[in-house]
Amino acid sequence: MLGSWKDSAARQAIIDFVTASTSEGDGFIPVPDRIATFDNDGTLWVEQPLPPQFDFVFGHWAAEVKADPSLAGQQPYKALIERDPAFIQGVATQDPATVAALLRAFARSWAGTTPAEFDAQVRAWLSTAKQPKLGVPYIELVYRPMLELFDLLKDNGFRVFVCSGGGRDFMRVFAEETWGIYKENVIGTAAEYTYSDGAVVRGEQLLGRLDLGPGKPEHIFAQTGRLPVFAGGNADVDIEMLSAAKFGLLINHDDADREFAYTASAEASLAKAAQLGWTVVSMKDDWTTIF
Amino acid sequence: MLGSWKDSAARQAIIDFVTASTSEGDGFIPVPDRIATFDNDGTLWVEQPLPPQFDFVFGHWAAEVKADPSLAGQQPYKALIERDPAFIQGVATQDPATVAALLRAFARSWAGTTPAEFDAQVRAWLSTAKQPKLGVPYIELVYRPMLELFDLLKDNGFRVFVCSGGGRDFMRVFAEETWGIYKENVIGTAAEYTYSDGAVVRGEQLLGRLDLGPGKPEHIFAQTGRLPVFAGGNADVDIEMLSAAKFGLLINHDDADREFAYTASAEASLAKAAQLGWTVVSMKDDWTTIF
Repeated sequence: MLGSWKDSAARQAIIDFVTASTSEGDGFIPVPDRIATFDNDGTLWVEQPLPPQFDFVFGHWAAEVKADPSLAGQQPYKALIERDPAFIQGVATQDPATVAALLRAFARSWAGTTPAEFDAQVRAWLSTAKQPKLGVPYIELVYRPMLELFDLLKDNGFRVFVCSGGGRDFMRVFAEETWGIYKENVIGTAAEYTYSDGAVVRGEQLLGRLDLGPGKPEHIFAQTGRLPVFAGGNADVDIEMLSAAKFGLLINHDDADREFAYTASAEASLAKAAQLGWTVVSMKDDWTTIF
Repeated sequence: MLGSWKDSAARQAIIDFVTASTSEGDGFIPVPDRIATFDNDGTLWVEQPLPPQFDFVFGHWAAEVKADPSLAGQQPYKALIERDPAFIQGVATQDPATVAALLRAFARSWAGTTPAEFDAQVRAWLSTAKQPKLGVPYIELVYRPMLELFDLLKDNGFRVFVCSGGGRDFMRVFAEETWGIYKENVIGTAAEYTYSDGAVVRGEQLLGRLDLGPGKPEHIFAQTGRLPVFAGGNADVDIEMLSAAKFGLLINHDDADREFAYTASAEASLAKAAQLGWTVVSMKDDWTTIF
């Protein structure tokens, strides 16, 4: 149980919360209310130099430009080709406006595709793309301590959901084999689909708003009918989700040797953690193994 | 197992499908794909003289008119007060345009309320309102054979979802105690919610489209990432959901003595059942007990 966690205050806080949740007393949480939600990028796997889904998307767009060079003058292709620093920074920090613009372009690029077609593209990317610094496929960069936390929560009657600003359908491709949770437990930014003749096909519009900031508890309520009692995140866009939960867990990226050390786009969440008593996990000091 | 079902061809078809789904061979269905979805009104409980949620809504609107008589000249209050036959017929048959107009009015009436406020209103209605012909609360008019079918499916690794044109949040109030499924397994027409200061509040807009006809498989895909393998319905607005599944079950209301006998708004689904080989359940001949 939590074998990749050092015997630290963070580990103990988690165990104390779960024990209280399942024991008679003030901290008891009825089984139906045991909803745990986790951000993905930077919380469950590496998000540097960019959240991995962007590597998938940018690869797809590069192929589109190769097939149709006239696209190179249009956004977001242009910013990408020119490596526009403001654009790259906006992506890296999950700036909501940048992410929204990207997701609209993303929706346009995949409009008309079926789930099977999209799944095949994501699987091809998963098996070939590698994280540039660590040199291995992104899917091997899932944090083992977090998977152990999923197991602890599930063993205690919690239903575990992932709730990310990234694409719902992108994550659902690998959720079951990687996280051990069903596709229906994956919440994310999503396109609308249209049903016709026995199949669904992706449309251009988003369904609901971007799953960032206040969009996170909104999407969680829409999907589950509840707000979470346990939430894990790592960035400012997770503040509302963490604030909505009884127990907040904030992953602090402070391990330059084994992963990355940065606080960009997490400053406000670290301040909130101190203010609201969230449990901050030091990747360097609290985890014996990362991957 | 299916103790309220007669030893009929319909019961045998269900058992054969479930047995094949869980046995080696052509009919095997991998566990992650075992999604079963059911319409609510007329499939899981009595929908005559109107789907029960309308009784809840109309009671609320009557109280609004009492508090503000000027509303009586506006729609849908006017049609309701005048018992406009076209309007009542549109509600009774779940005519999509009528239902859409009602749900918009419904959204307006409840905009600004919290889930806790809405839950309390629904619970008050559940404990007081009675079905006019049968004289008991609506919640006692859930079909026992269908709850037994839920158990059979769950015992065989299926995840059971309810998917109704009616309100997602309305159904979620009683889903857990009545159907034995979590709120997150309830799909329906839904309002958008806005998160602020630790709570979500209902807005006026619908999230996605009406959960009727093609909207059913669209909502199911959005919620679960899959289309169902088993689906149950009773009306023309269920055709697309039933068509999307490997096994379709259509409830035929042919028992005037114990429930109601009608085929209005189900004619096309009955024709489709014959054409596509769905299993048609005769409430009169296939069920020993209804409630």
